[in-house]
Amino acid sequence: MMNCLGRYLRLTTFGESHGTAVGGVMDGCPAGLRIDTGQVAAALKRRRSGDVKQESVTKRQEPDEVEWLSGLMEGVTTGQPIGFVLRNRDVRSEDYEALRDVCRPGHADFTYLHRYGMRDWRGGGRASGRETAARVVAGAVARQLCEKMWQGFKVSTCADEEHCVVCTVEGVPAGVGSPLFDKVNARLAHAMMSIPSAIGFEMGAGFAGATWDAATWRDEWNEDGTTRSNHCGGVQGGISNGMPIVFRTAFHAPVTTLEHMVCLNTREGRLQPVCTGGRHDSDHIGRLPSVVEAMACWTLADLGMEKFNGGGMGPMGRMGPMGPISPI
Amino acid sequence: MMNCLGRYLRLTTFGESHGTAVGGVMDGCPAGLRIDTGQVAAALKRRRSGDVKQESVTKRQEPDEVEWLSGLMEGVTTGQPIGFVLRNRDVRSEDYEALRDVCRPGHADFTYLHRYGMRDWRGGGRASGRETAARVVAGAVARQLCEKMWQGFKVSTCADEEHCVVCTVEGVPAGVGSPLFDKVNARLAHAMMSIPSAIGFEMGAGFAGATWDAATWRDEWNEDGTTRSNHCGGVQGGISNGMPIVFRTAFHAPVTTLEHMVCLNTREGRLQPVCTGGRHDSDHIGRLPSVVEAMACWTLADLGMEKFNGGGMGPMGRMGPMGPISPI
Amino acid sequence: MMNCLGRYLRLTTFGESHGTAVGGVMDGCPAGLRIDTGQVAAALKRRRSGDVKQESVTKRQEPDEVEWLSGLMEGVTTGQPIGFVLRNRDVRSEDYEALRDVCRPGHADFTYLHRYGMRDWRGGGRASGRETAARVVAGAVARQLCEKMWQGFKVSTCADEEHCVVCTVEGVPAGVGSPLFDKVNARLAHAMMSIPSAIGFEMGAGFAGATWDAATWRDEWNEDGTTRSNHCGGVQGGISNGMPIVFRTAFHAPVTTLEHMVCLNTREGRLQPVCTGGRHDSDHIGRLPSVVEAMACWTLADLGMEKFNGGGMGPMGRMGPMGPISPI
Amino acid sequence: MMNCLGRYLRLTTFGESHGTAVGGVMDGCPAGLRIDTGQVAAALKRRRSGDVKQESVTKRQEPDEVEWLSGLMEGVTTGQPIGFVLRNRDVRSEDYEALRDVCRPGHADFTYLHRYGMRDWRGGGRASGRETAARVVAGAVARQLCEKMWQGFKVSTCADEEHCVVCTVEGVPAGVGSPLFDKVNARLAHAMMSIPSAIGFEMGAGFAGATWDAATWRDEWNEDGTTRSNHCGGVQGGISNGMPIVFRTAFHAPVTTLEHMVCLNTREGRLQPVCTGGRHDSDHIGRLPSVVEAMACWTLADLGMEKFNGGGMGPMGRMGPMGPISPI
Repeated sequence: MMNCLGRYLRLTTFGESHGTAVGGVMDGCPAGLRIDTGQVAAALKRRRSGDVKQESVTKRQEPDEVEWLSGLMEGVTTGQPIGFVLRNRDVRSEDYEALRDVCRPGHADFTYLHRYGMRDWRGGGRASGRETAARVVAGAVARQLCEKMWQGFKVSTCADEEHCVVCTVEGVPAGVGSPLFDKVNARLAHAMMSIPSAIGFEMGAGFAGATWDAATWRDEWNEDGTTRSNHCGGVQGGISNGMPIVFRTAFHAPVTTLEHMVCLNTREGRLQPVCTGGRHDSDHIGRLPSVVEAMACWTLADLGMEKFNGGGMGPMGRMGPMGPISPI
Repeated sequence: MMNCLGRYLRLTTFGESHGTAVGGVMDGCPAGLRIDTGQVAAALKRRRSGDVKQESVTKRQEPDEVEWLSGLMEGVTTGQPIGFVLRNRDVRSEDYEALRDVCRPGHADFTYLHRYGMRDWRGGGRASGRETAARVVAGAVARQLCEKMWQGFKVSTCADEEHCVVCTVEGVPAGVGSPLFDKVNARLAHAMMSIPSAIGFEMGAGFAGATWDAATWRDEWNEDGTTRSNHCGGVQGGISNGMPIVFRTAFHAPVTTLEHMVCLNTREGRLQPVCTGGRHDSDHIGRLPSVVEAMACWTLADLGMEKFNGGGMGPMGRMGPMGPISPI
Repeated sequence: MMNCLGRYLRLTTFGESHGTAVGGVMDGCPAGLRIDTGQVAAALKRRRSGDVKQESVTKRQEPDEVEWLSGLMEGVTTGQPIGFVLRNRDVRSEDYEALRDVCRPGHADFTYLHRYGMRDWRGGGRASGRETAARVVAGAVARQLCEKMWQGFKVSTCADEEHCVVCTVEGVPAGVGSPLFDKVNARLAHAMMSIPSAIGFEMGAGFAGATWDAATWRDEWNEDGTTRSNHCGGVQGGISNGMPIVFRTAFHAPVTTLEHMVCLNTREGRLQPVCTGGRHDSDHIGRLPSVVEAMACWTLADLGMEKFNGGGMGPMGRMGPMGPISPI
Repeated sequence: MMNCLGRYLRLTTFGESHGTAVGGVMDGCPAGLRIDTGQVAAALKRRRSGDVKQESVTKRQEPDEVEWLSGLMEGVTTGQPIGFVLRNRDVRSEDYEALRDVCRPGHADFTYLHRYGMRDWRGGGRASGRETAARVVAGAVARQLCEKMWQGFKVSTCADEEHCVVCTVEGVPAGVGSPLFDKVNARLAHAMMSIPSAIGFEMGAGFAGATWDAATWRDEWNEDGTTRSNHCGGVQGGISNGMPIVFRTAFHAPVTTLEHMVCLNTREGRLQPVCTGGRHDSDHIGRLPSVVEAMACWTLADLGMEKFNGGGMGPMGRMGPMGPISPI
């Protein structure tokens, strides 16, 4: 996996906060999909809107203009990989000189150093929230693919006071996902916990539901195949049941808002107070709903490609040549 | 992914509860590792111990004897894929005849039907807890690999009253995991949520920590590179920091304990009361700690292979030919 | 990849010639396919027929009876992984004691030793032709899947005197394969060169065609979209064009037929004559056509799943919701 | 796979001949490798040199300047994905208007149309030789990684009159590659046959060797573990034996040099003569040696990462904690 998410629809991202650009390659998007680039721009703008709200905190400017490099002809996908780039501007790595030899608390400085034997000390590098801009681009494309696959597809989020983002996905039909490691819930958990500062994930009733007895937890049938409650969050045995898919992701507070830090100087092996004047991506909470939606769209589009395209025959009889499928 | 977990160390499992056998193939295990098959048997026995505790509930017998088919010579791994099988015995699918046309509430019957256009109505099929036996075998091998890689490697769990399993992993050095989609927390979330009936996952302080301010949440340094608290659960930026890795997984109550169910008859399109006399794997909670540990061992062994083997140079200078690495 | 072939349809094999069994797991086979196990048995019998022809040479007995472990219900695929095992019988590793410290010329002994720091000296281990039995099982299933996908699908081989196997695949429609690394020819080359003792591969006119000028090489159109010649072997730009797919694979002579060998004693660092009395899989040439066909079927089924299932929309309008596709 | 090559070291490429740019992402390159971008520029220049030789034929200008987007800090790899772009200039798609409705003979027009239900008619699109520029960039980085891993690593090619490229790789130690589908020869065959217009591949003595008897074919030992001949081309059982790796790839003549073509008009279902005035990448033969070398470097670097990093213990004792390795 490393920098790659998805199996049928594969997103590879690249780029650091203080390098030249962030970007990505979307591989596996079917040909013939007209991409509304306006929707992509809107998603990026929405991601940035959290920043705007708390302008005093976030000083960094990131004009997010997508440059589409390949895979589109006259606005329509050709089936070839879609490369795109978002340039970083206003990169002043000198702001970070003071951090060259020290590891900040609550950051990835120390762990990158141990992982790679070195680290990109210019800002958050790959660990920065900047990287999520590429995910939002991909998610905006995936959303359009989902809307083509499934009438009524709709993703919405609600961020509460406590750094939790509740996400509801409507319009995914029954039968998406696979039993073991491609469970919808497992794949969503993977995608959500890959977002910087994510610390918790739950489906439907989640942790609260874990305390209930079976009779309370169990979602009872209606005659039409819907259920009276939706404690399971729209997924049974890892596969969607046609009810809204509901999950919640928790994030911790942005640690970079604190101006005074006691850092670990790894060169001298001692603690060292540091006063940061850098322009950190501090308002990540405001951005998170758009990133959560992007990851949800990408994950469901990937799983949907398998189902829609007939990983199994399904009641829709997609794998027709194998014989008639009895309708349920 | 589908039925495959891991990238360097790849587990593929197969088998249904009421078929001939469950089993798996472990691909990528390095040569020269002496496997203590006694430890594997002990892990399987422990998985079953939950059943023993509540013998009145669980009537099904599963004598779990591992048959090793390949990849070992005189008890030592050869670097070739390790195939293994656990036979199912005491399979009486006639017990399930009554379920042939109905979908139980809280089960995967309905979703499998939509996913595949058919379903294996003999017990839980692939969705049954029986499948986790193969995971436990793989986890017991992965644990031994981790113990070889890392001195002091230790995994322990604590299951509480509320269907939550807290897992603590000690002995994983700093530098395991990767920034984006191979984050330790993301990969653990994926593995845990792939366990049947998992509905929530959190790292360290988790959902509670999401409500804290940055100063409370942030783990402050000690001079030796450890931290005073461990709210992050041993992972920063997706990479281990050398502190214990701590996470919690929530599961819902086993719905099969309820003898009376209102099912959905998909042939006739109506609700239908069913009284189940089948032998269901009802005490899955008792088994979960061993499955959680197995999945944790497999995931960390996989990520560890990359780090240990030099996915980066790391401070240990493993990629020596590239030049000396400055010690931190 | 290691022991895994395919992306949508994924075969993982395991097993050594002198271990307990060889076998495999087929992941991704769509649900609802009725498997004719008689055809699988026939393919295995045909693989062995080469042995029968030259009975004096091949002394080893391998009664190839497939044990189906999972993924089938009443002979029909359920969409779950299909595990299967072929037991090794008549395994007498004492025959190989003399080979414990020596590396035979023209064998994989030396390279395995360097790769793994040890080797399974009991017969060919993983390098033995025995492993191909698992491939033949998988290929026989894949062939049935191809036959369901494509009317008129037919694979035939012709082995000549010079250890070359020419394989012709009829009935694959235009549009299978992908431009870069999923080119039909690239994937076939990979699969064929993975067969023990393969040393050459060519498509259509192949090496001979490389000497031709463009006007000679180029296949001219008929009005119906077929071509007058088929020098390209049915593949243009990596994608099938609807003409028969034709390729040739070359194999070297079986080196184990030679009874006297000068081996390298790696313990003592000297050359050492060895007279082998082991029962080697010497008649691999007789078996190769069935293995070539199996690998061709698996590769095309895998690529076909992508196409058939709508990796792109294709002229058949499979991805219908995206709008009408103009017929060619 | 689609647009992705390699497992440990993963190259994803994107870009069409007449789009904005071609480029790629290299994922998995270890941190701490100093990249000589001059060598990359030289490799690109060499790729173009074939054009220069036959200037009258090739009219298209491609000033190949690499823009490095990520993964490097002060010229050293950080362990993060390396994104890069090569802009297309001088793109005049109006030259191709005449090809909008017709499929040229010997091209991928017809097959793309069937694969995707549409095609990028502006030049060769993804099938164009332009895409190989991204491969050459990646290969030049992989070559430097190989040189760091293995002292004496050297790749050289010799293109003959008959559109065959012989490639010799020196300095790869014994023990690289894996038994089944990661065989060095299988992986090289896959990579080579993925190059546009490749039609044949052979290792060592290849097709000629297939006619030899076992005694002639078999490479006999010297006492030091080298062999007297190298008919196998440096690979036994899919794993390198320390001898030079030698293989040959055949290509067909460039069909675009022919100005007059009888095309298939798919809109009107008839044959149609077309006189092409487009600027085609006609001199692909001159470019092929650099592309072959690039693919060889990438493939061996990928396989080498596994071996070097201890996919097995190997005689070098890399997986030391597992105990001492007996020297051969």
